[in-house]
Amino acid sequence: MEFKILKKSKRSRARLGRIVTPHGEVETPALVTVATQASVKTLTNEQARAAGSRLLINNTLHLHLRPGEQVIRKAGGLHRFMGWDGPLMTDSGGYQVFSLGFGRDHGIGKVLKSKTKARVKSGEQPSWLKITEEGVHFTSYVDGRRLFMSPEDSIRIQEALGADIVVAFDECTSPVADAKYTRLSMERTHRWAERCLKARTRGDQAMYGVVQGGRFSVLRRASARTLASMDFEGFGIGGEFGDDKSLMSRMISWVVKELPDDKPRHLLGIGHPEDIRHIIREGVDTFDCTVPTQYARHGVAFTSRGRLDLTKSVFLTDRKPLDARCSCFVCQEHSRAYLSHLVRAKEITGLALLTFHNLYWFNALVAEMRGKIKRGEL
Amino acid sequence: MEFKILKKSKRSRARLGRIVTPHGEVETPALVTVATQASVKTLTNEQARAAGSRLLINNTLHLHLRPGEQVIRKAGGLHRFMGWDGPLMTDSGGYQVFSLGFGRDHGIGKVLKSKTKARVKSGEQPSWLKITEEGVHFTSYVDGRRLFMSPEDSIRIQEALGADIVVAFDECTSPVADAKYTRLSMERTHRWAERCLKARTRGDQAMYGVVQGGRFSVLRRASARTLASMDFEGFGIGGEFGDDKSLMSRMISWVVKELPDDKPRHLLGIGHPEDIRHIIREGVDTFDCTVPTQYARHGVAFTSRGRLDLTKSVFLTDRKPLDARCSCFVCQEHSRAYLSHLVRAKEITGLALLTFHNLYWFNALVAEMRGKIKRGEL
Repeated sequence: MEFKILKKSKRSRARLGRIVTPHGEVETPALVTVATQASVKTLTNEQARAAGSRLLINNTLHLHLRPGEQVIRKAGGLHRFMGWDGPLMTDSGGYQVFSLGFGRDHGIGKVLKSKTKARVKSGEQPSWLKITEEGVHFTSYVDGRRLFMSPEDSIRIQEALGADIVVAFDECTSPVADAKYTRLSMERTHRWAERCLKARTRGDQAMYGVVQGGRFSVLRRASARTLASMDFEGFGIGGEFGDDKSLMSRMISWVVKELPDDKPRHLLGIGHPEDIRHIIREGVDTFDCTVPTQYARHGVAFTSRGRLDLTKSVFLTDRKPLDARCSCFVCQEHSRAYLSHLVRAKEITGLALLTFHNLYWFNALVAEMRGKIKRGEL
Repeated sequence: MEFKILKKSKRSRARLGRIVTPHGEVETPALVTVATQASVKTLTNEQARAAGSRLLINNTLHLHLRPGEQVIRKAGGLHRFMGWDGPLMTDSGGYQVFSLGFGRDHGIGKVLKSKTKARVKSGEQPSWLKITEEGVHFTSYVDGRRLFMSPEDSIRIQEALGADIVVAFDECTSPVADAKYTRLSMERTHRWAERCLKARTRGDQAMYGVVQGGRFSVLRRASARTLASMDFEGFGIGGEFGDDKSLMSRMISWVVKELPDDKPRHLLGIGHPEDIRHIIREGVDTFDCTVPTQYARHGVAFTSRGRLDLTKSVFLTDRKPLDARCSCFVCQEHSRAYLSHLVRAKEITGLALLTFHNLYWFNALVAEMRGKIKRGEL
């Protein structure tokens, strides 16, 4: 993998760049489209490409559980398995460790809606899985089996999957965790990072190390410095921040200053439209986010005038497109009335059309940011 | 609407034809693709077109209940509402009358899976709705409201929807019904057919009358003769036959002989791959069928070597395409292994890919039949 910086902003830390992988190039800053189980939910590959997606991220833990990395390896790797000839990335499974662990206990992140109350105090081990120096013991959501994943396992699995970019195994700490636990966890993540580098056997995959350190600037800086000294081709910035947006921007600024300028920085799992401008200005090159696709499946469209909840009956008589300023085919061919009808009638086509629009809209927003950097406006 | 017969087979009653509507032409014989709630389930319009679909059939009763015909009328009619500029058809609601009525009671048709036992004897009124001379009283599945639909209501709704072809309101009798009930119902359907013709106010929609008469040849012939004498632009052939395939072919042959040669004949709601050759040979011009789309959503693909149930784990390691003889993009780009993974992981994309393939495959099968008629082989 190669990373070229084409232009640096004079107004911010934003930069225009290009990631070159064995499966093609990605202009940065870029949204990395989530394809958890080897498909962009509701869309075909052709539709994902038409929506402007160039780099997809698959989920290591999910694919390990189903269909299993051996199925994918025997099929010739992820690219051939899913028929996607563009660049691919796999995450480390670290967010899922959080999501199944502290996230569940603290009622944060994906499991927020279940309103699980915080069952453990900050600093304790999560109750749904066990994290040791060796790795993580957890339970499969597919069949209830007790499983174990070490940093070496994560790399072995990611090598079998065969994406262009892999991510070192990390623990994503909870925003509720205290300084003591966050430091211990971060130091372990650093040791895991070294073990991941040692475990590599393939020369054709780039590996990103993941900066942790929670909400603590001393820890974040230390984590970035430590990882910067290791032999990674790029860096992930991990962590879950709940709803504290200003913390996220500050945290990125702490981290980015410590990372080498000539390597790409990927913000893991964050990116509401209102955040995108900020994270790009702070020097983030790529970021993945389930928001465009996940909100679509709940009937929500993103537009230049805010979100539309198409489950509401008021849209049934609204003949306007989702966004008059959007040039996607959904906005050219369909009205809010039709889309609202499809969503309300539980038609899968409605979810696919909204997903396409949202993904196109997010990709167009990021493309606009690239244009602004080019023109010296960001 | 115009119907041109381009060639008649010398080996059977099959004919090659063309239906010309205000929204384009359809070569016949043709599969009419089901778009119940104004979308082909899981697909975009562009995908439905790419799968070879030219004429879609929407469901009058479903659209009446949700979003309501006034929403669609105000949006400029079905074509504009759903963004489909090709030919459209709406059914009468008659099959739904059956499906919510006798079908439910007799455990036949769509509700077969619920294993409802036959609660009424043949010849009695169905218990879930009430059919009178005036029309049908039934309960909305959307909100439980008690509703009423007369033949005049059906036409008023279908005119508001604005398809190119509408269907006269009928009662689809149960295959379990006896001769006495079937005759009474059929005679009422004939009176309803006359009321539908009288109720028309639009000149730009073709109307099909529906032949009923159950499994009784005397009734079927009488029904066809009676409807043939009325001023319809084409004819539907209705009825539910359960699993008795030979009955269906015989029934069509009784009916077709009595219908005028120069008007199109549409078989309502039937068409497994193994039936298609027979019904075309009997002189059917168009037929609609939920099989390709519905089976896809249950993980089943149709191929030249029979059906594949992709929910089975054996396909996870099968790198072959669904059908080596199929030229659809799914068969060019994806393996059974990938599709099986998507279906097993409950990915919507898997259902969309299977729907596309099945629809393409059915349309290609019918196109092959048209070729055979052209070459004098069917």
